[in-house]
Amino acid sequence: MALIVQKFGGTSVGTIERIEQVAEKVKKFREAGDDLVVVLSAMSGETNRLIDLAKQISDQPVPRELDVIVSTGEQVTIALLAMALIKRGIPAVSYTGNQVRILTDSAHNKARILQIDDQKIRGDLKAGRVVVVAGFQGVDEHGNITTLGRGGSDTTGVALAAALKADECQIYTDVDGVYTTDPRVVSQAQRLDKITFEEMLEMASLGSKVLQIRAVEFAGKYNVPLRVLHSFQEGPGTLITIDEEESMEQPIISGIAFNRDEAKLTIRGVPDTPGVAFKILGPISAANIEVDMIVQNVSHDNTTDFTFTVHRNDYEKAMGVLKTTAAEIGAREVIGDTKIAKVSIVGVGMRSHAGVASRMFEALAKESINIQMISTSEIKVSVVIEEKYLELAVRALHTAFELDAPARQGE
Amino acid sequence: MALIVQKFGGTSVGTIERIEQVAEKVKKFREAGDDLVVVLSAMSGETNRLIDLAKQISDQPVPRELDVIVSTGEQVTIALLAMALIKRGIPAVSYTGNQVRILTDSAHNKARILQIDDQKIRGDLKAGRVVVVAGFQGVDEHGNITTLGRGGSDTTGVALAAALKADECQIYTDVDGVYTTDPRVVSQAQRLDKITFEEMLEMASLGSKVLQIRAVEFAGKYNVPLRVLHSFQEGPGTLITIDEEESMEQPIISGIAFNRDEAKLTIRGVPDTPGVAFKILGPISAANIEVDMIVQNVSHDNTTDFTFTVHRNDYEKAMGVLKTTAAEIGAREVIGDTKIAKVSIVGVGMRSHAGVASRMFEALAKESINIQMISTSEIKVSVVIEEKYLELAVRALHTAFELDAPARQGE
Repeated sequence: MALIVQKFGGTSVGTIERIEQVAEKVKKFREAGDDLVVVLSAMSGETNRLIDLAKQISDQPVPRELDVIVSTGEQVTIALLAMALIKRGIPAVSYTGNQVRILTDSAHNKARILQIDDQKIRGDLKAGRVVVVAGFQGVDEHGNITTLGRGGSDTTGVALAAALKADECQIYTDVDGVYTTDPRVVSQAQRLDKITFEEMLEMASLGSKVLQIRAVEFAGKYNVPLRVLHSFQEGPGTLITIDEEESMEQPIISGIAFNRDEAKLTIRGVPDTPGVAFKILGPISAANIEVDMIVQNVSHDNTTDFTFTVHRNDYEKAMGVLKTTAAEIGAREVIGDTKIAKVSIVGVGMRSHAGVASRMFEALAKESINIQMISTSEIKVSVVIEEKYLELAVRALHTAFELDAPARQGE
Repeated sequence: MALIVQKFGGTSVGTIERIEQVAEKVKKFREAGDDLVVVLSAMSGETNRLIDLAKQISDQPVPRELDVIVSTGEQVTIALLAMALIKRGIPAVSYTGNQVRILTDSAHNKARILQIDDQKIRGDLKAGRVVVVAGFQGVDEHGNITTLGRGGSDTTGVALAAALKADECQIYTDVDGVYTTDPRVVSQAQRLDKITFEEMLEMASLGSKVLQIRAVEFAGKYNVPLRVLHSFQEGPGTLITIDEEESMEQPIISGIAFNRDEAKLTIRGVPDTPGVAFKILGPISAANIEVDMIVQNVSHDNTTDFTFTVHRNDYEKAMGVLKTTAAEIGAREVIGDTKIAKVSIVGVGMRSHAGVASRMFEALAKESINIQMISTSEIKVSVVIEEKYLELAVRALHTAFELDAPARQGE
């Protein structure tokens, strides 16, 4: 008998019919003898509807009050699911974040979980009840309602699993697992049975939008086995867990991630003096623009070039800030490009294998794809290329690192 | 500087525009120096939408879970109003029933308020904030969300006013006060400046649906001055208060109430033995049918006739129960009539005036209206008549008791 935390997202509870289907799924697990805590998002579209209401009052809704409004979305779904379970003869009870209680800091709209009181839930589980908890929300020390920010229901699930020392945290989504790359780009992409937290973090941050990145961090930190599954299809999904290094035959690369949401900005001919990187990125950060890749190469003639990427939505804003900076520090020019794509190979296996990067560059060279930027981490190599080569690059790398599904005979 | 509790119903906060209008009204009071606690209902239609959602899961939604869902309606409006006030430079904060906290019993869907913690609200008022509280909801001692039942926002307003010893509880509605009778029936109907709690109770229970009856009882019990006003029109409204008997010239009758929602059932030729009334009404009550008027006259030939009224929706059900009873106790026959109306004259003044009833009967006789049943209380005389005479009867009584507005010259 295991203790399992199951999280269902907005699409999985988007209609009454879907909620009934979730109830059927939960019922099966319960009847198999598992203790269950179910975390739900709001019905898909509901959170946006509520935010729209608030924005009709004010373009910049008061954060505390926005949380009061937005948190009602999950409050509705948890009670509906509890009802649907009780109708099926499965004792169940719903709890809001405040009722659990999920204590957070007071950063409204993007609060962080500080502590979860597991007493109430343990009592209910002992009494044979399924506990249905509102995701995405909590309460601060003063009793104010808080929300964890978009996608925060995953984090609620993982945090509950950690607090309850659950055997597994299952995240139900609209995909049946984590793939070696996007199957829409590479038809030979394969579902991974297993992936490490670190790999998942790199995959998630690079645009494989299966899981919320904070949830993966949280799961890694507390070592909560996390499983990604399809809400309405059967299957084992993908288990995200610590790197046990037990399998000697694990592939070097787990997957190919990519992202075409970024734009590139370069400031050229920057006088190469200490502190110049801060002078350039400080104003960008102060303007609340998030920076992803940063590349600075060796200088020549005492000047250097400095390139970084931002989300495309922030491109114009970043360009404005950068031009001001360029004038101030006496840089030669500022150029930019929005037609770029980032492609990364990810895998804990590359730690112990030399030549992974060169194999990557070779595969791209074979297809005559020019590399504009390179950045690396322990378990990842990322390159920026011209956007139009994205699909070609991903397919070439998928084959080069032997990730293609074996061709099935007779098909 | 007064402390005022203001309650706005679902129609008053039914759209964003209306919420902005309420904010304007609250702002005016605040700028005049009053301390304000504002109680809100859900946007009109929202509670029904939420109940419909629940009923799609189950015809008989689990009461605890239904409260979790339904309470979200007010949670949205309070935060929207708080935002609208803050936007206008008026410091404001919203509280759910749980946050205040409004402690109730655990009778989900129809809970009763046990206690209100006024500490938080007093602190906010002291700090110059308008406090916006969700009506209709509370929390039980175990932290479960409860609702007070339909129309319960009025009760929340009055209970808060009592707990805070507010100077006045203002109930904003879609009428500009309490009238001597329904102006749609009698064009000469007049707005009352003042009415006593007892009179208001009789008027409310008889179908003048301005205020929730429990709220009036509550206000009377704790002597909270209650004022009914129009949400979006200026005017003094009607003050509901204790009978100070200061005015010698108060009219005998304050108003004419009526009701056409009832049906009449008569069981004839009942053997007149002790306990027969219980034998007849016990099964009706056990079937959860509410009975309004009950009339039993003196017996003849050791048998008696027994008549009572029920809501028309319960007529068929009551008839079935009564026929079974009639067979058991050996009554002669059971008859019924759904085409009836009840008309009542209400006024604390009638306590000290003989002849009020006869004046009523005389007025009806003049119009050749037959009286089918009569029942009286300290401050009320009710008659049941054929439904088609309802308007005629109300107009005749309105004139007979000198309630008509003086004819305005030159109009």
